[in-house]
Amino acid sequence: MRDDQPIIYLNNAATTWPKPAAVIEATMAALAAPVFGSGRTAGTQGEDYPTLAREALAGLFHAGPAEHYIFTQNATDSLNLLIHGFLAAHPGPCHVLTTALDHNSVLRPLHELEHEGRITLTVVPFEEDGTVSPAAVRAALRPETRLMVMAHGSNVLGTVQDVGAIGAVLREHGVYFIVDGAQTAGHIPVDLGTLPVDAYVFTGHKGLFGISGTGGFYIRDPDAVAPVRVGGTGTDSFSLLQPREMPERFEAGTPNYPGLAALAAGVAFVRSVGTAAIAEKAERQTALIIRELQAEQNILVYTERPALPIVSFSIQGMDDDDLGFILARAYGVVGRTGLHCAPLVHRAIDGGEGCVRLSLSWFTTDEECRTAARAIREVARHADCQVDPA
Amino acid sequence: MRDDQPIIYLNNAATTWPKPAAVIEATMAALAAPVFGSGRTAGTQGEDYPTLAREALAGLFHAGPAEHYIFTQNATDSLNLLIHGFLAAHPGPCHVLTTALDHNSVLRPLHELEHEGRITLTVVPFEEDGTVSPAAVRAALRPETRLMVMAHGSNVLGTVQDVGAIGAVLREHGVYFIVDGAQTAGHIPVDLGTLPVDAYVFTGHKGLFGISGTGGFYIRDPDAVAPVRVGGTGTDSFSLLQPREMPERFEAGTPNYPGLAALAAGVAFVRSVGTAAIAEKAERQTALIIRELQAEQNILVYTERPALPIVSFSIQGMDDDDLGFILARAYGVVGRTGLHCAPLVHRAIDGGEGCVRLSLSWFTTDEECRTAARAIREVARHADCQVDPA
Repeated sequence: MRDDQPIIYLNNAATTWPKPAAVIEATMAALAAPVFGSGRTAGTQGEDYPTLAREALAGLFHAGPAEHYIFTQNATDSLNLLIHGFLAAHPGPCHVLTTALDHNSVLRPLHELEHEGRITLTVVPFEEDGTVSPAAVRAALRPETRLMVMAHGSNVLGTVQDVGAIGAVLREHGVYFIVDGAQTAGHIPVDLGTLPVDAYVFTGHKGLFGISGTGGFYIRDPDAVAPVRVGGTGTDSFSLLQPREMPERFEAGTPNYPGLAALAAGVAFVRSVGTAAIAEKAERQTALIIRELQAEQNILVYTERPALPIVSFSIQGMDDDDLGFILARAYGVVGRTGLHCAPLVHRAIDGGEGCVRLSLSWFTTDEECRTAARAIREVARHADCQVDPA
Repeated sequence: MRDDQPIIYLNNAATTWPKPAAVIEATMAALAAPVFGSGRTAGTQGEDYPTLAREALAGLFHAGPAEHYIFTQNATDSLNLLIHGFLAAHPGPCHVLTTALDHNSVLRPLHELEHEGRITLTVVPFEEDGTVSPAAVRAALRPETRLMVMAHGSNVLGTVQDVGAIGAVLREHGVYFIVDGAQTAGHIPVDLGTLPVDAYVFTGHKGLFGISGTGGFYIRDPDAVAPVRVGGTGTDSFSLLQPREMPERFEAGTPNYPGLAALAAGVAFVRSVGTAAIAEKAERQTALIIRELQAEQNILVYTERPALPIVSFSIQGMDDDDLGFILARAYGVVGRTGLHCAPLVHRAIDGGEGCVRLSLSWFTTDEECRTAARAIREVARHADCQVDPA
C-alpha cells in the first residue's frame, strides 16, 4: 500500500488488531516483573496470571469451575489434544462426525486419523443458508458414532451453528461433542452453563483480544479425555505419572505467562463491553457493508446476514488474490484472500476458487466500513468495464 | 521479603529475568503492528518473526536448514511431540532409554507410555560426579532399543552430559537420540552441526532470553518423526492431510508471533555476547558462591564444579522449604526449593528431601553472588547453633 495511506485492517478473524490498551499494559507488566511460577519458588509469588485468566473465562462463559479452563498454544493445539485424548480414553471402533464448514484445524486431525484407520469419518454438509441442520446430523449418526467435532462459527460464511439443537441430538445418542469456538468466543454471547456441549475450544488472540500464542478449552468432565501431553507441573513431583487433578491433568511445562496476562485483560475488556453489544455492532456494520456491495451487480456476497463480523465476497471474473492485492495496495484495505483454511466451504460456495474476506472487530469504525465498501465498489465497476466494455 | 529490600533473583533455571532490553522492545514492536501471518493475507506482510527466529537459531547452533527449527509452546510440548511422533513413525516393540537426571518433562511422557504398555523403559543411573557414562548407556542397550531421550544439562546438579560420546554409542546401534537442551541452550556452546544428536529440544524463556510461551526443537531428518499435531498451515489448503514439507509438517495453527519476535531478539543477544563468554562467567560465579558455602561445615553443596550456572545445596538439619523461605523473606534472595520436577535426582542425592537451588544468568552480578552466599552462611551458622548449642 502507499506509505501515506492509513491501513484499514479488516482481517480480525485471523487476529484482532489493535488490542485494547489494557492488554498491552498487562503484557508489559508481566514481562517487567519476574513471574515466579507455580509450585516451589521461594519468595513472593507475583501475579498468578493463569488463575486470573481462568476466572475471567469462567465469568464470560457462565460455567465453572475455573480450573476446567485449560490453556494451550492455540485453538488447533486444543483440538488436537481433545481429539487424541478422547480416542485414548475410548478405545474401540469410533465413527466421528464433522461438517463441511469446519477449518483444517478440525478437518486435518480427523482426516489423518481416518487415513491411519483409527476412525471412520462423516462430513455433514451445510444448507443453502450456511448452517448445518440438526436433522442432517441425526441422519449421519451410526451405532458406533462416538464423537462430533464442529465449528461454532464459520470463518468464511460468518454463520453461527445451532450447537444447542445439535448438542441435544448428540446427547440422546451419547455422542461426545467438541465445539470449536475460535470464531465465536468473545463475538457472541456463549453460555456454557446451559449449552449441551462437552468441550468448547477457544483461541486467545481473536475475539477475546489476547495475543497470539494462547488458546485453550473448557471441559465439562475431565475424565472423558485422557491427558496426552504430560510433563512437569510443579506439583506431586515424585509421581512419574501425570497428576490427574485439574488443571494439571492437561497442562505441563512452563505456561505462557505474558500471554495469559494478556488474555485475562482481553477477557475483562470483552466482559466490560458485553458480548451482546459486540454482536449487535457486528450485525449493524456487516449489514452496512453488504448493503453497499449488493448495489453492484457483479459483486457476489456469500452470506446475506452473517451473525459474525465476517463479509466474504467475490467480483465476477476477477481472481480473489488480484482483488485482495488491489484493495490493499490501492486503498489500504487489508482483508484475507484464498481458502481461509476451510477448503470444503469453498468447494461448496465457489467451486474452490476462493474469495475475499473482510472481518471486523469492536474497534472497526463505521467510516472504515464505508471506505472499504466504496473501494470494493470502485474496483467492481472497473472490473465490469473490463469484462464487457460498453 | 521486606518492601525496602531489592530482590536478588536467582531462579534463572526456571526462567531468566530480567530479559535484555532488545527482547522487550521486539515483543512490543510485534504487538504494536498488525502481524499479517503467513499465507494469503493481502497487503504488506510485516515482519516474519518465525523465520527471523529460525534463522537466528540456525546461526547459534551451527546447523541448518533454518526450517528444521520447529516452534512449540515450551520444551515439554516439544518432547511430547517428538516422543509420540517417533513412536507413530516406528510401530512395533520399542525399548526406550532415559536417565535418572531427567526432568518430569521426559520422565512422565515415558512412564505414561510404559504404563500403557506401548514401550519398555530403562532409566540409566548417573555416576558420583553427576554425569551419565557412555558405558552405562551401552550396558542398558537391548536388541529392541529404538530411542533414547535425555537431558543435556541437569536442572538440579548443573552438570552437562557428554552427548557426543553417548550419541556415538547410540549411532552404532541405530538408536534415535532426542536431547533435552532446556538447561543448555544459550548457556554453553552447542554445535548441532557435529554432535551426533537426532533432535535437540530447547525452550525460549531460559538461556535464550525469550519470553515464556515459546519452545521448540531442531530435527535433523524430519521423516524420522510423524506429525501428531496437525491443522491449518495457510499452505496447500485443499489437502485434508497435513503438508509434509518443513516447517509445516510440525507446525499448525497461529504461531506465537510476539513470543517468536522475543526469541529472535533473545538469540541475537546470546550470539552477540557469545556462549563461550556466557559459560565462562557462569563457571566463575558458581565457583565464587560454592567457595563461600563450603566454608561452613553444615552446608552441603551437591556439585563441586557445575558447568551450568546452578548451585544446589542444603543446610544440615534444615528443611529446604524453610531455608528458601528465610532467604527470600529476610534477605531478598529468590531461589527455588523442593524437587525441581526431577524426582530421581533427588532420590539419589538427598533421599528425596529436596534442596535449595540458586541459578544465575548473564545479568547476575558478582555482588549479588557474594550477598546471596553471605546470607546463606549467616543462616547456616544460626542453624548450627540451633542444632547443637555450644
